[in-house]
Amino acid sequence: MLAFLNITQGAWAEDGYDLWLRYRPVPNAQAIQPHSITAPGHSPTVKAAVAELTRGLTGLTGQAPATDAMLRDGALWLATPTDSPDIARLAPGLTKLGAEGYAIRSLSRDGKAVTLIAANSDRGLLYGSFHYLRLAASGAPLARLDVRESPRIDLRLLNHWDNLDGQVERGYAGSSIWDWWTLPDDKGARYTDYARANASIGINGTVLNNVNAKAESLTPFYIAKAAALADVFRPYGIKVYLSVKWTAPMELGGLKTADPLDPAVVAWWRAKADEIYATIPDFGGFLVKANSEGQPGPQDYKRTHADGANMLAAAVKPHGGIVMWRAFVYAHDNPDDRAKQAYSDFKPLDGQFADNVIVQVKNGAIDFQPREPFHPLFGAMPKTPLMMEFQITKEYLGQRTHLTYLGPLFEEVLRADTMARGKGSTVAKVIDGSLDNHRLTGIAGVANIGTDRTWSGSVFNQADWYAFGRMAWNPDLSAQAVAREWAAQTFSPAPSVIDPIVTMMMGSREAAVNYMTPLGLAHIMATGHHYGPGPWVSDLARPEWNPVYYHRADASGIGFDRTKTGSNAIAQYAPALARRLADPRTTPERDLLWFHHVGWDQKLAFGETLWNALVHHYDAGVADVVAMQATWNGLAQQIDADRFAQTQTFLAIQHREAIWWRDACIAYFQSIAKRPLPPGSAAPAHPLDWYKALQFPFAPGNPK
Amino acid sequence: MLAFLNITQGAWAEDGYDLWLRYRPVPNAQAIQPHSITAPGHSPTVKAAVAELTRGLTGLTGQAPATDAMLRDGALWLATPTDSPDIARLAPGLTKLGAEGYAIRSLSRDGKAVTLIAANSDRGLLYGSFHYLRLAASGAPLARLDVRESPRIDLRLLNHWDNLDGQVERGYAGSSIWDWWTLPDDKGARYTDYARANASIGINGTVLNNVNAKAESLTPFYIAKAAALADVFRPYGIKVYLSVKWTAPMELGGLKTADPLDPAVVAWWRAKADEIYATIPDFGGFLVKANSEGQPGPQDYKRTHADGANMLAAAVKPHGGIVMWRAFVYAHDNPDDRAKQAYSDFKPLDGQFADNVIVQVKNGAIDFQPREPFHPLFGAMPKTPLMMEFQITKEYLGQRTHLTYLGPLFEEVLRADTMARGKGSTVAKVIDGSLDNHRLTGIAGVANIGTDRTWSGSVFNQADWYAFGRMAWNPDLSAQAVAREWAAQTFSPAPSVIDPIVTMMMGSREAAVNYMTPLGLAHIMATGHHYGPGPWVSDLARPEWNPVYYHRADASGIGFDRTKTGSNAIAQYAPALARRLADPRTTPERDLLWFHHVGWDQKLAFGETLWNALVHHYDAGVADVVAMQATWNGLAQQIDADRFAQTQTFLAIQHREAIWWRDACIAYFQSIAKRPLPPGSAAPAHPLDWYKALQFPFAPGNPK
Repeated sequence: MLAFLNITQGAWAEDGYDLWLRYRPVPNAQAIQPHSITAPGHSPTVKAAVAELTRGLTGLTGQAPATDAMLRDGALWLATPTDSPDIARLAPGLTKLGAEGYAIRSLSRDGKAVTLIAANSDRGLLYGSFHYLRLAASGAPLARLDVRESPRIDLRLLNHWDNLDGQVERGYAGSSIWDWWTLPDDKGARYTDYARANASIGINGTVLNNVNAKAESLTPFYIAKAAALADVFRPYGIKVYLSVKWTAPMELGGLKTADPLDPAVVAWWRAKADEIYATIPDFGGFLVKANSEGQPGPQDYKRTHADGANMLAAAVKPHGGIVMWRAFVYAHDNPDDRAKQAYSDFKPLDGQFADNVIVQVKNGAIDFQPREPFHPLFGAMPKTPLMMEFQITKEYLGQRTHLTYLGPLFEEVLRADTMARGKGSTVAKVIDGSLDNHRLTGIAGVANIGTDRTWSGSVFNQADWYAFGRMAWNPDLSAQAVAREWAAQTFSPAPSVIDPIVTMMMGSREAAVNYMTPLGLAHIMATGHHYGPGPWVSDLARPEWNPVYYHRADASGIGFDRTKTGSNAIAQYAPALARRLADPRTTPERDLLWFHHVGWDQKLAFGETLWNALVHHYDAGVADVVAMQATWNGLAQQIDADRFAQTQTFLAIQHREAIWWRDACIAYFQSIAKRPLPPGSAAPAHPLDWYKALQFPFAPGNPK
Repeated sequence: MLAFLNITQGAWAEDGYDLWLRYRPVPNAQAIQPHSITAPGHSPTVKAAVAELTRGLTGLTGQAPATDAMLRDGALWLATPTDSPDIARLAPGLTKLGAEGYAIRSLSRDGKAVTLIAANSDRGLLYGSFHYLRLAASGAPLARLDVRESPRIDLRLLNHWDNLDGQVERGYAGSSIWDWWTLPDDKGARYTDYARANASIGINGTVLNNVNAKAESLTPFYIAKAAALADVFRPYGIKVYLSVKWTAPMELGGLKTADPLDPAVVAWWRAKADEIYATIPDFGGFLVKANSEGQPGPQDYKRTHADGANMLAAAVKPHGGIVMWRAFVYAHDNPDDRAKQAYSDFKPLDGQFADNVIVQVKNGAIDFQPREPFHPLFGAMPKTPLMMEFQITKEYLGQRTHLTYLGPLFEEVLRADTMARGKGSTVAKVIDGSLDNHRLTGIAGVANIGTDRTWSGSVFNQADWYAFGRMAWNPDLSAQAVAREWAAQTFSPAPSVIDPIVTMMMGSREAAVNYMTPLGLAHIMATGHHYGPGPWVSDLARPEWNPVYYHRADASGIGFDRTKTGSNAIAQYAPALARRLADPRTTPERDLLWFHHVGWDQKLAFGETLWNALVHHYDAGVADVVAMQATWNGLAQQIDADRFAQTQTFLAIQHREAIWWRDACIAYFQSIAKRPLPPGSAAPAHPLDWYKALQFPFAPGNPK
């Protein structure tokens, strides 16, 4: 028997592929009641739910549950009002939970103790099943459940920046999981596992291709491939969307123009939409990056973003499709503060978009920095539904190797108060539609998924995918609660494991802010690949591509003056907030240099000079990584060998690179500030030129 | 218990990752004797051997063998003459087996029945252990073993055409398994599994980077990463090599020239070699693609290939390194038959190369076609060691999806008779050094390995990696015997499984020849990516890039006249062979159109006209794929679900694409031959223009 166990252990090696759906035996397995599952429905979605429950309960308890048409004592019962007329009575309030919501209730039925998962649709049953498994895997008590859940946001989407050649822009987890070449024939198991993982956290849509789109993704050749993926995803409640290139009618259709008001262009898009929907009847719609970073768009024809979006929206409207139009725009010929340009372009268009258009806005006004104040468009376009765009892949937050849990970033943005309709007008309320009463609501995350065995490049990066999904479902969830859920399922429900891991995770993003861009600094990464520090870069063609544009360090101080004396970007925020931001003393210290140019010797809240505080923040970032290493090392006995070793290795990389970031930035800023380091702070390991000379020509995530 | 088995089965899913080292229980497990392993040695290599035996025997028998310092009855005993002085007596002839050879003998020792694996070095013990496991996994009898093995060829290398950005040129199995970015820190388990797989088939070296090399791979940054891989591979007897870019002294060293006779260039390379060997003491040496397809080289400075190779050879000589200099050259300004140019360039250099240079020659004179006559350089450079370059990745043989087992191709080339020293002067004898008495011998295979879970893009593509290794060890092994070995370990030793699978495999390459390039045709693939047919292509800049250059179809007939009336390439072969090739009637029909321009109505051996025979070959290729599909479908009950389904899907793709190849080529050739199809042959499904219009802009394996 020893040998057999041996083999089994080998087979159980934790390579990370199973994500948070590991379903390993839990200590309190006997507390997990159900030995049978009763599900009257027969749709592929119900079958997927039953299959997942069977897989999960078998793994968690070591006992395969039976599936039984008759309700047995201790059964798990999946039913909609269509399946059983008294569901409405057994799950009061169900109707209000909508098409995706569900209730889970422990109740007695014909004298039998059963757990009812009730929903208005089979999708709801699937979500409820995953909820039940999450509770079971986390060791939560299951005997007296009374859960009611429905998503606050309707469109919960991943954006894959995946190119048709298999490379992933800003991807740090291998190449694209879409094997375009063997699709539509080969629908390998990984696609189903992708759908399972997404459904388990409530993600209900996926944009398959990069926003820097190739026209070819709209050819019949590629539409057939997208349709094959849609077939795999459909039972899991996941719709497929495509990014489109504005000039597709010219590139594919041979038209002379892509003017959105040209009848031939209108007709081309309408026919293309009809063609897609003939193949993918539940196709979600289009995502568009137009007139942005060199992409063509309606402005090339002196039309507005609204003209462009509405033309596409009309094409998909008959089929129930939508258009997601990105607000990430800044122009090479616009000398104004880059942080202001999206607002300047889009704010005047408020009210001009068709009712199946949603404008997709990045969380901040620049580009997915370790920290940015929330984007001023949130709260500023009351007549237009706005969709959040988060970046789950960590272009600016340590890429593959750094442990920087994004939950706190998501939380910080979602809870930020726009003050648009007075106190409490949070960003979450803008995007869930409640602030301005919008029907169309959405949130997107740029995926961190690739062919790496761990999906996300590391086990801890999986937490960012998880957190995005959970917080898209309920933007009020705390990053900490989500981290606990994730850690319990990913490692173990034991508090001796969860507690230190969650502590690491919760401090990790602030650590990265500190060793990269403390006190409101931003965009001082190296050019192109954004790997490592490059605050000295000043020679790029467009001013707003250069780090010096953002930090503006000079002999007098550092920071971007966005008050009236500077770019006046603060005027784009609601007046009550703008007033607060106008004064460095009432600006949150974490955003100080984002909004103000501050003298090196200016005293900050704790009485330190800005220069000393800056250095101390860099020191703190490094120290926090050292602390994470110690915490992780303390878990050696409680984590499987493979995941322990990789995380330990990656933390060592993070430590080395945190020091690199700190040293390079301090060396550079000191060359400008010309002030001594505060006592106790070590001098950089190398002279500034050493850091400047480093080159990383083949850094990942930066396809040519 | 049911549930537990259930989980176990799930964990045992056959995703292909384990290659031929699956070690699943075999029916005759009780016939596998050893319950203990005795290995006096303590080197990392011995430890690797014992670990592999433990893993393998545990898996095969369900019993973990003990490791014991004392020999027990039934033990497996791994020992070198250093370990035990009487090994020489127990394994007579061992000395002659060299540093990598081994003997395996069933014998009695102090009254105990033991199986001795004896070798002169720990590497030999490792190879012997893998041999033993191969026998055990194949269900071979193990009670009376008397095996003596040593490799016929010294350098048995993989060439990875892996770029530093992670893309693989001509790779169809995902991206590069070298994660340059997390090296040298992260030495993930996959690197060890790569080493295990290679050691199991005797591969003892690997060139990490593409022959189209970037200079950067010689920077300290990348040398440290290569060193980390070398550390992982060392216990498995695998040395690391690097491809180098000729102009590295200019790109990295700031020199004004790369002239091999310039003292500064000589000094740069010598210092670079010293630097590499300081980090990787057993570094293997350099592989060079120079003055080939746009790569720089010594001819840019009016020096010869020998001048270039010898300069590099001198740099690595003090460290025991070698230089592999590729003969794959053809020049844009040379109007002569491309098939002749490598010979023309290299033959005059015979005898001029340093003794640690080996010239690496592709198996044929063009480029890894489904079939080519052997390269005329084999046998033509008696004073120079020549190394074979095979392409394991199937650039021209169906890429990822087609089942085209390369064993028969390797066998055909290795057994081809150069007649250089009379009958029996086979290519195998050229490259194993026996024909011209060379000490330095080698064979390289362009790897088909990537991050795909199956490593090679499909389960059957793994057989090509396997066959390359086995036939590199012993070029006299038959493709069929190797296929049986592989199938037994990969699927099951049951004849009901092996027999049909080996039948499929053995016919599969000829099927591809037939549906792509029958009767000696070559290089009529589409441009760039080489995916699918393109016989009509005639508009590329260099004449020898165009398919029409190769097939030369016109109103009178088809084929490349390489006799005296044409390019006279046949004169590059030994006179006895050249005489035979001068006459179409004594030229093997399979190579007919390679050497001759033949009239459409010319009668071939079986009395058919060439045109009819051509069409019938295309028909036969398609029919063979249909037969393979039927054979595979018959195995449904005997193959696990995942590997069965993927192979079935890929065979369906192969079937569709075989028809595409056939139809497109027939449509095109018929437009020139202007003859009716023979009775019973179906007309192409589409008109010629339909095939010409097909575009595949993002086909894999063709990085920009």
